[in-house]
Amino acid sequence: MEAFARLPGIGPKTASRLTYYLLRAQAEESLELAGALKELRTGTIFCSRCFNISAAGVDPCLLCTDTTRNSEIVCVVEEPLDVLAIERTGQFHGRYHVLHGALSPVEGIGPQDLRIEELAGRVTAEGIQELILATNPTLEGEATAMFLKRRLQGLAVRLTRLARGLPTGGDLEYTDISTLTQALEGRSEL
Amino acid sequence: MEAFARLPGIGPKTASRLTYYLLRAQAEESLELAGALKELRTGTIFCSRCFNISAAGVDPCLLCTDTTRNSEIVCVVEEPLDVLAIERTGQFHGRYHVLHGALSPVEGIGPQDLRIEELAGRVTAEGIQELILATNPTLEGEATAMFLKRRLQGLAVRLTRLARGLPTGGDLEYTDISTLTQALEGRSEL
Repeated sequence: MEAFARLPGIGPKTASRLTYYLLRAQAEESLELAGALKELRTGTIFCSRCFNISAAGVDPCLLCTDTTRNSEIVCVVEEPLDVLAIERTGQFHGRYHVLHGALSPVEGIGPQDLRIEELAGRVTAEGIQELILATNPTLEGEATAMFLKRRLQGLAVRLTRLARGLPTGGDLEYTDISTLTQALEGRSEL
Repeated sequence: MEAFARLPGIGPKTASRLTYYLLRAQAEESLELAGALKELRTGTIFCSRCFNISAAGVDPCLLCTDTTRNSEIVCVVEEPLDVLAIERTGQFHGRYHVLHGALSPVEGIGPQDLRIEELAGRVTAEGIQELILATNPTLEGEATAMFLKRRLQGLAVRLTRLARGLPTGGDLEYTDISTLTQALEGRSEL
């Protein structure tokens, strides 16, 4: 129960419900979960190049070694799940770099906690032409993009940022002021 | 009860709850609501220039006659509520044109149901330099913008569209594929 309750989004009630469920269920169910949890840590590594999750023993990861992908353009994201989100679009055929977080003075996360020096190293070593700074459109994500801009100044690499504006299917009437302001400022020729 | 139930978002249960509430409440409450509903239609008109809501007897409306606003740039929206949304940003100082809907073959709304000819007339008569086609980022809104583009072709006016992309405070991980695709395509230099 205590182990479950330490997980995010699981309170003491859910933790006890899960525990009693497993007590009543077939023994295999607990053992399968135990095995999956062990595998989660022993069966995966972080790619030493892009720091995305990779299968144990596969380093660099499959995205880094896929020769059909363009090595000159790298999408910089906060978390491995962001890689999945961008892959789902099917529109990006470059490589990735996972920072493992965003700058946050409140949570005590500084530049040394993120994979920023490794990114700077890649720009020089791999001849990268464009970095898409795809950190989240939040205060922390913006601060991280601005820090990266300053840190990478002087390197011969083009820095871009994902477009800000109205999300698909939205409604002007319910759009927050900040998004609408950026949609107005960023308006483009039709 | 029947009159309440005809309103959008009010089902038969809510309609009967509202009715019994008013039966039990002070008589003034019903009479105030009755007065406000009457005033809603007798006290307002649509501006004959921009078709936004205006107070009865005030035509053109205050937005159309405000001399501190720029008459050369007009924001074209679907509904009067969209005018309020854009005014809330405090970033737009031009004028408006309310179409009163969007093209929708499914709902049988064609160009003749919208204030499109009136808009074309204004472009020529008022010397408008830029039209921001701020219809919603939906199928209907996009179709309406495309129709306007074709209709206004040949007139010496710049047509722009609000930026599409990530909304403020969003999270890449939970962003839909279409929005993320447009954020990638629309990426800009940092």
